[in-house]
Amino acid sequence: MFFVRKDGYSLEMTEIETKSDELHHIVILGGGFGGLYAAKMLSGGKVKVTIIDKRNFHLFQPLLYQVAAGWLSPGDIASPLRVVLTDDKDTYVLKAEVTDILPQEKKVIFRDGEITYDTLIVATGSHHHYFGHDDWANIAPGLKTVEDALEMRRKILLSFEAAERETDPEKQQEWMTFLIIGAGPTGVELAGTIGELTRTTLKSDFRNINTENAKIILVEGLNHVLPTYPPELSEKAEKSLKKLGVNVRLNTMVTNIEPNKATISKNGDSEVIQSRTILWTAGVKASALGKALATHTGAKLDKSERVIVNSDLSVPGYSNIFVIGDLAHLSYQGSGPLPGVAPVAMQEGKYVAKLILNRIKGKDTDPFKYKEKGNLAVIGTNSAVADLGSLKFSGFIAWLTWAFVHIRYLIEFDSKVVVLFKWAWSYFTRKRGVRLITGEDPFPLIDTKKNEK
Amino acid sequence: MFFVRKDGYSLEMTEIETKSDELHHIVILGGGFGGLYAAKMLSGGKVKVTIIDKRNFHLFQPLLYQVAAGWLSPGDIASPLRVVLTDDKDTYVLKAEVTDILPQEKKVIFRDGEITYDTLIVATGSHHHYFGHDDWANIAPGLKTVEDALEMRRKILLSFEAAERETDPEKQQEWMTFLIIGAGPTGVELAGTIGELTRTTLKSDFRNINTENAKIILVEGLNHVLPTYPPELSEKAEKSLKKLGVNVRLNTMVTNIEPNKATISKNGDSEVIQSRTILWTAGVKASALGKALATHTGAKLDKSERVIVNSDLSVPGYSNIFVIGDLAHLSYQGSGPLPGVAPVAMQEGKYVAKLILNRIKGKDTDPFKYKEKGNLAVIGTNSAVADLGSLKFSGFIAWLTWAFVHIRYLIEFDSKVVVLFKWAWSYFTRKRGVRLITGEDPFPLIDTKKNEK
Repeated sequence: MFFVRKDGYSLEMTEIETKSDELHHIVILGGGFGGLYAAKMLSGGKVKVTIIDKRNFHLFQPLLYQVAAGWLSPGDIASPLRVVLTDDKDTYVLKAEVTDILPQEKKVIFRDGEITYDTLIVATGSHHHYFGHDDWANIAPGLKTVEDALEMRRKILLSFEAAERETDPEKQQEWMTFLIIGAGPTGVELAGTIGELTRTTLKSDFRNINTENAKIILVEGLNHVLPTYPPELSEKAEKSLKKLGVNVRLNTMVTNIEPNKATISKNGDSEVIQSRTILWTAGVKASALGKALATHTGAKLDKSERVIVNSDLSVPGYSNIFVIGDLAHLSYQGSGPLPGVAPVAMQEGKYVAKLILNRIKGKDTDPFKYKEKGNLAVIGTNSAVADLGSLKFSGFIAWLTWAFVHIRYLIEFDSKVVVLFKWAWSYFTRKRGVRLITGEDPFPLIDTKKNEK
Repeated sequence: MFFVRKDGYSLEMTEIETKSDELHHIVILGGGFGGLYAAKMLSGGKVKVTIIDKRNFHLFQPLLYQVAAGWLSPGDIASPLRVVLTDDKDTYVLKAEVTDILPQEKKVIFRDGEITYDTLIVATGSHHHYFGHDDWANIAPGLKTVEDALEMRRKILLSFEAAERETDPEKQQEWMTFLIIGAGPTGVELAGTIGELTRTTLKSDFRNINTENAKIILVEGLNHVLPTYPPELSEKAEKSLKKLGVNVRLNTMVTNIEPNKATISKNGDSEVIQSRTILWTAGVKASALGKALATHTGAKLDKSERVIVNSDLSVPGYSNIFVIGDLAHLSYQGSGPLPGVAPVAMQEGKYVAKLILNRIKGKDTDPFKYKEKGNLAVIGTNSAVADLGSLKFSGFIAWLTWAFVHIRYLIEFDSKVVVLFKWAWSYFTRKRGVRLITGEDPFPLIDTKKNEK
């Protein structure tokens, strides 16, 4: 039986399902880079595939910061899973929230149903977390979902509206101070983007404030921005950020976040930064399904709660369960786990798909090999850093490379040519798209308390 | 003094403001079609203009249904007011929610501040209402704001996801039944759009359901769809709707709406329609500021709470207060009030701006004259009806006319060429854009109660 609901109802078998039910059934949890590439590779392979995600779309997370900045719409970087997989007739898409995995019964449990599998691929990724300070989440939003990006956009744009109306210079500066915590790729890109917003895009739109006076502070605990990049590129990125007016604070930790202020600390010296817009790009933690899997299979987790997998990405003792992408901890060639980036997840997805198809044919597969594709981070228009292994470069050519790589991926699945069009448009006109404040407004927008008698 | 906060703080005067403060100050409430056209016409006229809106963007409402259907992103049809007015240096944009108008003191009150004016233009429009059944609002969302459109999109797309997972055929049909209440332009366009979604766009994306089996029911109290259009066009629109599978129920009233069902009644015969997706496109009511204005000025309201204005759109007894757009009731050439459509609002905005500029120069202005531009409604790709007065036509040419008129407007203010691009793309590929389900999901997605023992 293919699909059983909590109340015991089973799916009535249509012609397709009867046919498909003779096939090996692969269930994929998560429609991110790993899950989607696995599904695409499996299609046409005389297997039945069910991909389950709580969202109905695949999100191109590397460009989410451009949604946060109001340069792109969520729809520009998200593709409905059904659309991407529409031609794969033996592939089913289920919108459901998975709560547990029962390896003994080969079952996946949703909040409102369950499904059985022959082979399982777990690719539910990671989410941002606050190192035990969950109360910071309401003040300093992270950037993982479309809703996160719209919330960031709302906070960033509202702060200029409030500053325009604020008459107390001190409070005005509070509104015009943007504190970004964590200088990994997302933090760097976000800081650069806010730099461009204030220095060019918004410059002539306000009457009472000069957006160029905005303070953008980027805090990083380690001694470089983009700490995983080669030091020379980190330094170039830092210079580019400074050109855009970003104040970079290295070796600096955040020790507290309260509404409208954060405390940072460097070598034991504390400083309080008054800011209405605190953005979190620091920590990620693996999806809770890793823990569930560990409980039932005895698999080990690392300190980020990633599942430690075999060299073929299977869970120790369970050759029919694979973990890929941000949720997987694969010690690779003795050099620690592979990083939680899109190219790793894609390659792992493809590898596992190939392994499963090989196994059905009775063939063996070599352990997973990662082909290092390099790293790219963009700081602003015309400015990026690229680390392609032997080739390290920065500036305009790096920026073009970055744009090309991202557009190529976006077009691969859903012909999102519109992003290319929007980028070209804004490149030549310096106009930027989608600066809408949506959702609920805070009230009062500007704070009137302090001045009341 | 220009801008005073509730706590008594006044805006510190910058150079621009000192200069501007010698100028006649026109405050415009609302950044819709009326307010924006007035602001644009006033710019450069040696006056100071402040436009106040609770949203930071102008919304092109005639295309909102395409956002609801997932064909366009909100950003495609919305332009930040600051961007539209960026070059008008004596024009200020304030993001604030206006709660009252004090004509004696020439003051407008916000939720968190106030502002004084020399001349006031009130253009705060209308919102949908439920004829005293406010409890229906949670079940049957209307379509006035970006959030409304995303909520409608969420409901429409979720229902197919739920139907795909539902195993009880009766409940599956409930999910696949779309009830649209009100067959004005929005209702007709929405019904046509859902027809196209189910007949073409979504057709090959599901495995367990055939989206062509969706029931789309359009209910209208009068004896024609598009009741304000010439009867021959209404009939053509009705035929086009039927071709897209829409079941049109005329002379039919809605008497009750409950979760998952609505009661409709024709000639005293009641029928209960089981539907998970009930959409409201029936009634609008004027903005609450009409009532506030009436209270303070003694102006009369009509039954939709629109302000009855003089032939120059001023409020009786207050030559420095104008009401335009959906909020104004202008008896025109003895034929009842002008309809609440974009061309009326635009022309009124332009007229009032001209009148004010004339007045400052000491010149008189003739009463407002409405230039009938005709009506256009679209039913589906290649299918629309056009009533250009002497010229009435339908089909492909009407559709082209519709597309041209809408694109022309969108480009006028904010170069939204991207919409043209998206339309051309989807016209030739039949692919449709932005089918993302965002916001909070209901739980359980599919109902498991009825089948429980």
